Amino acid sequence: MNYTRNAWYVAAWSCDLSAEPFAITILNEPIVLYRTFKGVAALEDRCVHRLAPLSRGRCEGENLRCLYHGVLFDAKGAVIEIPGQDMIPPNAKVRAYPAINKHDWILVWMGDPAKADESLIPQAVGLSDPNWLLGYGQMDYAAEARLICDNLCDFSHLSYVHANSFGATEDWAKSRPNVIPLERGVRFERWMISQPRMTGRGEGKADVWQWYEFMVPGVLLMSSVTLPEGSAAKCNYKAPAADRALEGEGITFTSQAVTPLTDKTARYFFSWGPRKDQGDEKLRDVLMGVADMAFTEDRLMIEAQQRVIDHDPKRTIMPTSADKGVTLFNRLVEKMAKEDTA
Amino acid sequence: MNYTRNAWYVAAWSCDLSAEPFAITILNEPIVLYRTFKGVAALEDRCVHRLAPLSRGRCEGENLRCLYHGVLFDAKGAVIEIPGQDMIPPNAKVRAYPAINKHDWILVWMGDPAKADESLIPQAVGLSDPNWLLGYGQMDYAAEARLICDNLCDFSHLSYVHANSFGATEDWAKSRPNVIPLERGVRFERWMISQPRMTGRGEGKADVWQWYEFMVPGVLLMSSVTLPEGSAAKCNYKAPAADRALEGEGITFTSQAVTPLTDKTARYFFSWGPRKDQGDEKLRDVLMGVADMAFTEDRLMIEAQQRVIDHDPKRTIMPTSADKGVTLFNRLVEKMAKEDTA
Amino acid sequence: MNYTRNAWYVAAWSCDLSAEPFAITILNEPIVLYRTFKGVAALEDRCVHRLAPLSRGRCEGENLRCLYHGVLFDAKGAVIEIPGQDMIPPNAKVRAYPAINKHDWILVWMGDPAKADESLIPQAVGLSDPNWLLGYGQMDYAAEARLICDNLCDFSHLSYVHANSFGATEDWAKSRPNVIPLERGVRFERWMISQPRMTGRGEGKADVWQWYEFMVPGVLLMSSVTLPEGSAAKCNYKAPAADRALEGEGITFTSQAVTPLTDKTARYFFSWGPRKDQGDEKLRDVLMGVADMAFTEDRLMIEAQQRVIDHDPKRTIMPTSADKGVTLFNRLVEKMAKEDTA
Repeated sequence: MNYTRNAWYVAAWSCDLSAEPFAITILNEPIVLYRTFKGVAALEDRCVHRLAPLSRGRCEGENLRCLYHGVLFDAKGAVIEIPGQDMIPPNAKVRAYPAINKHDWILVWMGDPAKADESLIPQAVGLSDPNWLLGYGQMDYAAEARLICDNLCDFSHLSYVHANSFGATEDWAKSRPNVIPLERGVRFERWMISQPRMTGRGEGKADVWQWYEFMVPGVLLMSSVTLPEGSAAKCNYKAPAADRALEGEGITFTSQAVTPLTDKTARYFFSWGPRKDQGDEKLRDVLMGVADMAFTEDRLMIEAQQRVIDHDPKRTIMPTSADKGVTLFNRLVEKMAKEDTA
Repeated sequence: MNYTRNAWYVAAWSCDLSAEPFAITILNEPIVLYRTFKGVAALEDRCVHRLAPLSRGRCEGENLRCLYHGVLFDAKGAVIEIPGQDMIPPNAKVRAYPAINKHDWILVWMGDPAKADESLIPQAVGLSDPNWLLGYGQMDYAAEARLICDNLCDFSHLSYVHANSFGATEDWAKSRPNVIPLERGVRFERWMISQPRMTGRGEGKADVWQWYEFMVPGVLLMSSVTLPEGSAAKCNYKAPAADRALEGEGITFTSQAVTPLTDKTARYFFSWGPRKDQGDEKLRDVLMGVADMAFTEDRLMIEAQQRVIDHDPKRTIMPTSADKGVTLFNRLVEKMAKEDTA
Repeated sequence: MNYTRNAWYVAAWSCDLSAEPFAITILNEPIVLYRTFKGVAALEDRCVHRLAPLSRGRCEGENLRCLYHGVLFDAKGAVIEIPGQDMIPPNAKVRAYPAINKHDWILVWMGDPAKADESLIPQAVGLSDPNWLLGYGQMDYAAEARLICDNLCDFSHLSYVHANSFGATEDWAKSRPNVIPLERGVRFERWMISQPRMTGRGEGKADVWQWYEFMVPGVLLMSSVTLPEGSAAKCNYKAPAADRALEGEGITFTSQAVTPLTDKTARYFFSWGPRKDQGDEKLRDVLMGVADMAFTEDRLMIEAQQRVIDHDPKRTIMPTSADKGVTLFNRLVEKMAKEDTA
């Protein structure tokens, strides 16, 4: 898989990590997560003894016991007890991964632990952020994570995949956003002029200002602002001031993360909702209903695309002018993946 | 797969092709079918842009639009629109296959389009033929098409596989038909003397005259005529005049087609029923009930045979004298497949 | 697979073999079993003609007929009839395996027939043995048989896998049995001192004397005797006289057999129950309830272990001092497998 290891991968929602060991595979590596007094431990999910999964084990404070023959590991992966045996071989350990709880996500650093810098975590909005009313969900894909990232870097698909759910017009496919390279991602900005209201609320049309950043390894951070028709022109097609948003359809934020599980499976985490001064729980729930429908549309298309690719993996794609962001992001990832191994 | 490409493959019943794109895989190639004003289009089911399946797309008159990012194809497979982009690369096209609606089947020519000759379509009896009362059905096999063709070229299996459904005696296994090579198939003819009535109707025994042709790529056309005992001797064991058939058990016709989907899957299409002056809807329905039971017996045996073969693909068969037709047909296909690549 | 062929493999419970052909795969070889007048026939489950499975055939006295095209085999695997053909090729035969009905098991010898010695069948207790009250069952594993054998040669797992079902204490993991090599297996013996009553019956604690033999190719024969606390010391930690067992918790016997079906699947046969003078049907049923729960615990752990191994087959194990029996048994099997091919 062509992914950079030196990045924070979303492994779970914080609220889904209890006192039980939690299993996930990231970049083909089986990992067990569990809470410690200080935070989160992430270990290779494979006992050194007979290769049983530690995620079928038992948390004992800072430590994790394999429940096949009782070998006990500390939070750094070292074996600290073998029942009925005094001597512990010095190399008896499993790999430990830097792990952290941030933005209400559990994130795991898959690369060199010395480079695990908390400041490299994309600036998502957490579920518990007091300024936002966010719903959340997740979905497993029978498809390579890269295909989901490609999809998120090219919103021309909105006109065809999401004509029903988001009510997206063909304008999404026929116009192009500004695409701006970032150090660890790509930024997209655009005005969508005279669009129907996406959530079905309100009369008439609106101008929508949208920007999003798609960050390594696959995190989307997006804000949408729905404004009265003519607002784009009034702003001279630059970024608007946020407080001019219409009531009830105003500023929303979505954080999304694509995590490669194996070569051909991925997990997709998403939250979405209005800023607290711009909407209520009802709007949040309407948005989540739309999101569930839309992200299922994406999944069905991308899993079908994966099956076509698998049928004949040698076929090459033919990029269009809509693929500028896709290409920029893929090149960035490719460059970082090369640097990993350099 | 050892199949000739220069042949018409049954892809669907005509009545199953609506205004929606229709997906099928033939000889491992994913194909999308749709109706045009003039007839039927058959295109490679894979968008040139990002390899999404066109069968998830939308028919727009003569054209088909990919519903991932909106690329539009004409009925010859050429890209004629890329939303938001003026320039269309000249090589932006997918493969188009000759396709035709005949005998109430949709048939696709998998070989050189220049050789797609309508006269090579086997002379099946269509569901709408005014002289016949035909029922129809289809079945998917988890087995290589060749094994189904082998089965249809050797009716000695009737005595063992279909003792219950067709009520076939051991005479089918112990006697041999005349086997006559044809240019694109094999013809089988025989009298079955003093047989019980296959459909359970009427008293006493009967002589049955049966001929069938098994044509490339895997189409069976068969007529059976049930006559009073002694008829075979009266005819001097030659072909009978058809009008001497017993009322209600008389002349029937079945058209069957085996289509290789992938290396190890196939679709089996079949119709069966009496000539209109020899039976009614009731007889047709009795025959279809028998056929459903019998063809399920075939499928269970052949799928089991496929599993045994897959378990150890190096095992070789030991042909018997009943395999004359099987061998002739396989040699013909092998010869044609070689000519394809010559 | 690293198994010795020169051994008797349990293929079925005798009571499960009726007048119908019975299919099983052992060591990746498909086998059909059927009863003959003299005993049991075991043939390669693959017709010489077109490779259909004989297990879909029909028993005709000593013989078995393929129900695809009617080829008839005798109990030694020789073709004795081809319908409609006089000549039978002299090499028209399938492999026949020595097979026997013993201890209410049907056993098949997978190696050189000349070495098929009945005295090599492990001394199991059959379901019909008048001295015992045995329940029985079986389970299919999505795991290599070797992993199940490993599990049965190291009872330290009782403390962690079976803390609930068997109520096993950590003493099982912290103490070690005597491990004695046998010519075709390994013998394990130990006293477990002051243990809670495993079946939940009775008050207070007990000393348990346990021995078992684990025999090639994967047969476990085990006796447990539950005695009053202090018995181990009174016996000077040697084997006790059996008649001192507590009423209702006394001497039990279990016979278990692990049969490798394919590289990654296995069938596990087991019986368990009290000696007739030491228990009743009620105790037998309690024990079988415990066994069903415990063997499911084993299966879930071992299938999970297999998935971890399959994920990265190059990972090596790190044996502990509890693995002495595992290592002895594996070395024995390895040596015998080498002798097979020598």
